[in-house]
Amino acid sequence: MNVVRTVADVREALGPARRAQRSIGLVPTMGALHEGHLSLVRAAREHNDVVVVSLFVNPAQFEDAGDLAAYPRDEQRDAVLAADAGTDLLFVPTRDEVYPPGFATTVSVGGVLTATLEGAQRGTTHFDAVTTVVTKLLNMVSPDVAYFGQKDAQQALVVRRLVADLNLPVRICVWPTIREPDGLARSSRNARLNADERERALALRSALDAAQRAVTAGERDADAVGLTARAAMISFGVEPEYVALVAAGSLAPVARIETDTLVAVAARVGATRLIDNTILHPNGRP
Amino acid sequence: MNVVRTVADVREALGPARRAQRSIGLVPTMGALHEGHLSLVRAAREHNDVVVVSLFVNPAQFEDAGDLAAYPRDEQRDAVLAADAGTDLLFVPTRDEVYPPGFATTVSVGGVLTATLEGAQRGTTHFDAVTTVVTKLLNMVSPDVAYFGQKDAQQALVVRRLVADLNLPVRICVWPTIREPDGLARSSRNARLNADERERALALRSALDAAQRAVTAGERDADAVGLTARAAMISFGVEPEYVALVAAGSLAPVARIETDTLVAVAARVGATRLIDNTILHPNGRP
Repeated sequence: MNVVRTVADVREALGPARRAQRSIGLVPTMGALHEGHLSLVRAAREHNDVVVVSLFVNPAQFEDAGDLAAYPRDEQRDAVLAADAGTDLLFVPTRDEVYPPGFATTVSVGGVLTATLEGAQRGTTHFDAVTTVVTKLLNMVSPDVAYFGQKDAQQALVVRRLVADLNLPVRICVWPTIREPDGLARSSRNARLNADERERALALRSALDAAQRAVTAGERDADAVGLTARAAMISFGVEPEYVALVAAGSLAPVARIETDTLVAVAARVGATRLIDNTILHPNGRP
Repeated sequence: MNVVRTVADVREALGPARRAQRSIGLVPTMGALHEGHLSLVRAAREHNDVVVVSLFVNPAQFEDAGDLAAYPRDEQRDAVLAADAGTDLLFVPTRDEVYPPGFATTVSVGGVLTATLEGAQRGTTHFDAVTTVVTKLLNMVSPDVAYFGQKDAQQALVVRRLVADLNLPVRICVWPTIREPDGLARSSRNARLNADERERALALRSALDAAQRAVTAGERDADAVGLTARAAMISFGVEPEYVALVAAGSLAPVARIETDTLVAVAARVGATRLIDNTILHPNGRP
């Protein structure tokens, strides 16, 4: 596996493959790789000739300096995991390579897609930071396909919107959430949980399961399903930041669960903020 | 010359050239082609294997519905001129093709580059509209080189900033302003001038000439040069919107003309808003 740190080098490394019209898959990450990321890398490996993984902890998308400082970083470990999963090229740009002096451009997706859920909790600049850096990474690497996780369901929808709106010549693939055996969604932040918090972290998945059971049992009122999910979370001693039932494609609030509906939850467990989601299919899976 | 109206068709039309690694030059225009545009098309023709001209009157960058409605449109005339100048592919997207329902993304260059001159006069959304549509056109066509006119000096700097900041894989070429024999800068808006206004429109070029003469004579105080330029314009009975002396690269205001300095002027002549500019080289041309 080749490791490069500049845009010029990543383009040069990919030049021969591009000229030979071999397909390039990109998995953009903030490092701290776990099974979720690695499932994306394996998908990229299966469907492309060349697999690029980027590691860049984007300072702009942390609204909190402490959260940024606490974000786990271990390039050597990430490099071993990425290589084992089939990565050809690891792209690790510096902060100055991504945001050189004089940098002045923002890519912003407006509307409900970014105003709700994580946008409402983390501030309006959070998704601007995501969409700006994703646009940059897609232009730096120019992949045929880029892979994102369903764990960050809202981010995936925002990226799809961005790519459509800016006519970026790339296909976006969204891959299912990978979970621990007990159901906890894999996340780089899980490493920060102590033993007690790790148990209580199951609150998020339990809330989603409760919502799913209510809908399977015939409940269609979104408020009722939301209250059921919320109660499940609180039974673990975890206070939800939000439990939201929204249209799976637009994130618009829903009153009745008649079509595919995203249940998205967020909560702090101790000092660690976790999110999770599932899609309810009241009419059966498509 | 081939004419296409959709993103899918422009990509399909360019596919063979791209796969053969032939170079593609794009001249983005709002139509109403004149010698200024055609000089860009000829430059693209000279330096590329394939020349694409886009015609799209971007509604978002008109702050005034009347100005948008009055903007001249004549696709058949433009097609003849573009073909004669060497265009291979004319791309004429509809408004819905560029801004489909649900469109929600803005590309914004911040800082002094967009806040001053045209940004100050036309409102902050003007350049957002320019940078958003230019990003889209560059992604739709994926040219190797895109051509812009020095007539819109600020726009050219904003586009260069945008391309650098978003790592768009394209080279930007800026071509000199083309003028009428008497010095009036070519502009699609010149067609709206009546005979009296056409005479008075020379006020803009006269202001630039006066600034140039003052600097050639040794004046280095920006305010003094600005006043001289302003007086020249007013002598034509034209009231300047602005006469600005700013650093040619950053558009930051300058007090002393010690390095390359952009003199930019804007004025309404009758109902028609005109702009022009020149670069003062106090140390000789580079």
